This record gives sequence, structure tokens and C-alpha cells, in this order.
Amino acid sequence: MSTEQRRRLSREDRRAQLIASGVAFLASQPLDELTIEALAEREDVSRALVFHYFGSRQGLHTAVVTTARDALIAASAPRAELPPRARLDDTIERIVAFVRAHRGTFYSLVRGVASGDPVVRELVDEARDENAHRIVEVFHELGHADSPLLSVAARAWVAFAEDVLIELGLESDRPAGEIVAFLSRSALAIAASVDH
Amino acid sequence: MSTEQRRRLSREDRRAQLIASGVAFLASQPLDELTIEALAEREDVSRALVFHYFGSRQGLHTAVVTTARDALIAASAPRAELPPRARLDDTIERIVAFVRAHRGTFYSLVRGVASGDPVVRELVDEARDENAHRIVEVFHELGHADSPLLSVAARAWVAFAEDVLIELGLESDRPAGEIVAFLSRSALAIAASVDH
Repeated sequence: MSTEQRRRLSREDRRAQLIASGVAFLASQPLDELTIEALAEREDVSRALVFHYFGSRQGLHTAVVTTARDALIAASAPRAELPPRARLDDTIERIVAFVRAHRGTFYSLVRGVASGDPVVRELVDEARDENAHRIVEVFHELGHADSPLLSVAARAWVAFAEDVLIELGLESDRPAGEIVAFLSRSALAIAASVDH
Repeated sequence: MSTEQRRRLSREDRRAQLIASGVAFLASQPLDELTIEALAEREDVSRALVFHYFGSRQGLHTAVVTTARDALIAASAPRAELPPRARLDDTIERIVAFVRAHRGTFYSLVRGVASGDPVVRELVDEARDENAHRIVEVFHELGHADSPLLSVAARAWVAFAEDVLIELGLESDRPAGEIVAFLSRSALAIAASVDH
């Protein structure tokens, strides 16, 4: 990008551009290595400029992780018009596609919380809550009675699914259809095991 | 402990005593706060002594986490004489008891890996692998065919169970029997969903 083009960016656009670059960074490197310096070098701008937009390494991480997380949530938004089983399959299908298209980003989100930053951890936990909420909706529509145990099971299934997505989605070339079918069956099996 | 008693401790006993104190520390405080200084203060010994035994904060963490992890693995060692279903229930029952008797320690092991230390993470991952291996054994004995997917499912179920153990074992007073029954049913349901 030329200096001329840069000059034309509004403050908001400039910030969005830096965040997008940070998210792209996560595709190949862990969150821990995303520093003010690293992003400045990557974008060929001054550290002062990056600092100006994010204030600190944590501010940068918060902005980048929020954007990456929101992209995952948006990419897998349930299609309300579908009946529950088909909606479950469709949602998981789009999660698998997202995970494979943004391998490093997904890994950074799920395992990157090992960076120990509680703010980052909370951001990722919000995505887990959102996904658990979606799966509970499906369970309800399929006739499972609402209960605290059903909510716990849905949240724990999200942890289960993250593990499967890393093992099969990222670390194997198993066909997406097989991963989707297994995750979908496992979710229904977990719901059934709540009812007993 | 008096200076006289201390003097009688062998090098190995002294080290074991410091490690035990570190594990006890985890019962009420996160791993991140376990420093050479904190342990020296807790045991009323010099920082130099603690440093002498562990070399660094990471050396201390490695020793303490290894001991805590091994205690969990030992406390939940499967009873080979039981048939598979009963062995599964019995193992989970002892894990729930351990989790409730050592609340902070379990939490530190499972969530403390958010400390970002890759060595600690690997130690905890070894416990996950051991538990996944135990559950695969049960699945085999129950007639489930060996397959890569069965192993992935067992490993992911361990992540599922950790979430449930924190939510129900630590953050609720749900009767242990109910937690055991649910975890056991969920494991069998997951195995069945692999076979399809």
C-alpha cells in the first residue's frame, strides 16, 4: 500500500486494516507473538502508530481476538429457516469449513487462550457460550426438556467439538462430511444421555 | 516444623516436602502465583533453598504439576478386576471424589494450563492421554471396534468430562452419584455415536 493510499484511510478504516492484519497474522503465528512491534513491521508503519490505535499489546490482542471470534460466530450463525436437525448439520458444516479455511486463527482462538490473558480467555468463552446456547436451542426444539444438566452438557459438548475440530478438522484430511456427521451424532447422543 | 526437624530431612525428603507444599498452595491459589518467593515464605525457608531445589519458577511448576497430576492419575487408576461398565463407573466415581477433595488442585490442572507454560500444558496433556487411553480400553471391552475416530472421540470426551467436572463437581453441590451416572452415560453415548 502506497503512502498516498494510506493517507486516504479514515481513522476507523486504518484501525480496521490493522486488526485485519492481526487476524491474518494469527493464521500462521500464535497470539503470543502478536506484539505492537510485530504488527508495525508487518504493515510497514511505525510502532507509535500501532500503539496509538491499541494502547498496549493487550489492547491489540483484545481487538484482534474479538474480530476473529466474531467472524467465527457470524460464519456459523444458525439458519433459522431450517428445521432443528438440518440446522444443526448446517451449522456444524459451516464451522468445519471455517476451521479449515482459517486454520491458524481457529487454533489461536481455541488453544491460544493458553496465552494466559484472562481478557482473551473471556472473549473466547463468550463464543463458547454462544455456541452452547445455539445447541441448547436445537435440543429444545427436538423435544429435550430444559434443565441445568442440559445446559452443562451443551457447554461441555462445545469443548468436545473443539477437540474433534482440531484433531480431525486441522490435523487430518478426513472428509468434512464425516466430521459433520460425527459431531452431529455426538451432540444428539449427549442430549439423549441427559434425559436418560 | 522446628529447625531440628528440618535438619533431619534428607535432601529428597526436603524436596518432597516443598513439592507437597506447592501442591497444597494450588488448593487455594492459581499456579501463576506459585513463585520461588511465595513457596519460601509459605515454608518459612530462604528463597535460596527453594531455588536450590528447583532452579527456577518453571522448575518448581513442573515438579508441582507433575506431582498433582500423578496424584489424580493414581487416585483414579482403573480397577482391573471389575467388568468394563462397572470399572468405568468406579473410575469416574473416584475422579469426582478427587476433584471435590482437591478442588483448587483440579482447577489449577485443568484451567491453570492457561498459564501459558508449554511444559505445564504438556504435563496435563499426558494425563488427558492416559484418561483417554483408559476409556478406549473400556470401549474395546464393550465391543466397540478400534478406529482412529474412537480414539479422537475418547480424547474429546475427556475434554467434555473436564468441563462437566468443573461445572457440576466444583461449581454445584449436585450429588456425586448423579454426576457419575451422567458422565458414564455420556461416554457410552459418544462411543455409540462413533459406530453409527
